[in-house]
Amino acid sequence: MTSQYTIIGNPLSPYVRKVLVCMDLKGLAYRLDPIAPFVGNEEFSRISPLRRIPVLIDGELVLNDSTVICEYLQDAHPQAPVYPADPRQRARVRWLEEYCDSRLGEVIIRRMFFEKGLKRFLFNQSTDEAVFAKARDRELPQALDYLQSQLPEQGWITGDLSMADITIASFFRNASFVRYQVDAQRWPRVAVLLQRAWALPAFERLARIEERIARTPLPQQREVLTELGVDLTEHTLGDGSPRPGVMSGY
Amino acid sequence: MTSQYTIIGNPLSPYVRKVLVCMDLKGLAYRLDPIAPFVGNEEFSRISPLRRIPVLIDGELVLNDSTVICEYLQDAHPQAPVYPADPRQRARVRWLEEYCDSRLGEVIIRRMFFEKGLKRFLFNQSTDEAVFAKARDRELPQALDYLQSQLPEQGWITGDLSMADITIASFFRNASFVRYQVDAQRWPRVAVLLQRAWALPAFERLARIEERIARTPLPQQREVLTELGVDLTEHTLGDGSPRPGVMSGY
Repeated sequence: MTSQYTIIGNPLSPYVRKVLVCMDLKGLAYRLDPIAPFVGNEEFSRISPLRRIPVLIDGELVLNDSTVICEYLQDAHPQAPVYPADPRQRARVRWLEEYCDSRLGEVIIRRMFFEKGLKRFLFNQSTDEAVFAKARDRELPQALDYLQSQLPEQGWITGDLSMADITIASFFRNASFVRYQVDAQRWPRVAVLLQRAWALPAFERLARIEERIARTPLPQQREVLTELGVDLTEHTLGDGSPRPGVMSGY
Repeated sequence: MTSQYTIIGNPLSPYVRKVLVCMDLKGLAYRLDPIAPFVGNEEFSRISPLRRIPVLIDGELVLNDSTVICEYLQDAHPQAPVYPADPRQRARVRWLEEYCDSRLGEVIIRRMFFEKGLKRFLFNQSTDEAVFAKARDRELPQALDYLQSQLPEQGWITGDLSMADITIASFFRNASFVRYQVDAQRWPRVAVLLQRAWALPAFERLARIEERIARTPLPQQREVLTELGVDLTEHTLGDGSPRPGVMSGY
């Protein structure tokens, strides 16, 4: 039986991870086309005009942007809600999700993960150590100060688990891929939240996949994912040549 | 009587315009602190960690990001809905809003409006004509091709007026400030939509304000807005010095 949903995007992207965690929590099955950033072919450009991952396909409906996708999944499958019902709390969750998608996207993804990971892995280029160091030592601490000021001492941000918690935890997974660990003395609320979120079965199931994928060259990734039991699409939109440029996240 | 809502941000920003049109449609009053991009003081940085406008203040709740604000206003004031009830239609509206905030933000705002408007007006610097020409002749036509492919022949995008229509119309107002007119032969669906949206009283009321503000130096803007009957905050967070850098929109 074919799943209702197809997701295009690699599980190493925090934007893809947000969506996959959301689907896991809601008990929704999906087929995956695990394309990496920068390698989408022309068909990919057509369905994702900003060349971003993830894309969700649900019959005629093609959605780009991780937040738009999660909001849609919430509207279509209200069980296991990932946005609070109260308008003020919901707005806070949306703002924190946007803050992370935007600011942690710049700092953790475009600077740290791109410099130390993708640049070498996809383009065989060396890390710009100054960019990486500035992100690690100045920009990320500033973002952590802000998050620390917004988080509760313990528990989820608005009481129940929401996309705010999921998004923060998704981005810091990528920080951990480039060996960045949040200092629990300096930002205890963030560190506690990350531990709690990463212990969720939805994050743990993905972590097993991420760890394998991170060590697998692009051409072998589909094979490894099949072995891990992930339901893959028959065709891939990811057979273009890698092209450098702005990280196609979101 | 003081309005429940305070909006921080200049009416010349398309992100601010989206929110003000949404509030007008819903019949919501607001006080305005009309600060321009780049000039927010330290207090502004504290409440808007990405230094973006608009900010909405509703008692203890401080929201950044125009989309988060419009979603909140919709949740809190369901009258005159700006997002459709059907989940698939709602998702389409959210995606188009995101596409515009992101792509038209880059092309129309950070390149065209910034180069021809803000750079001279705020920083007394000259336009980079190559950046402007590339945006006008290559990047914007590409975005217009995409929008044309997504729009109906006539009428609003999902039947009723929504944030998708409002957002497109908000951005192309800024294109018109730098004398860019959408070619109605080449992109008839976009041209028809713009005409229809700009004729709405909510856009017309703002247009009168925008036209005056666009010709008024920063220090006199509050005076002009008061004269035009806009309810202003007593204090402004916009008394910092202009600092160049990335456009603080969204």
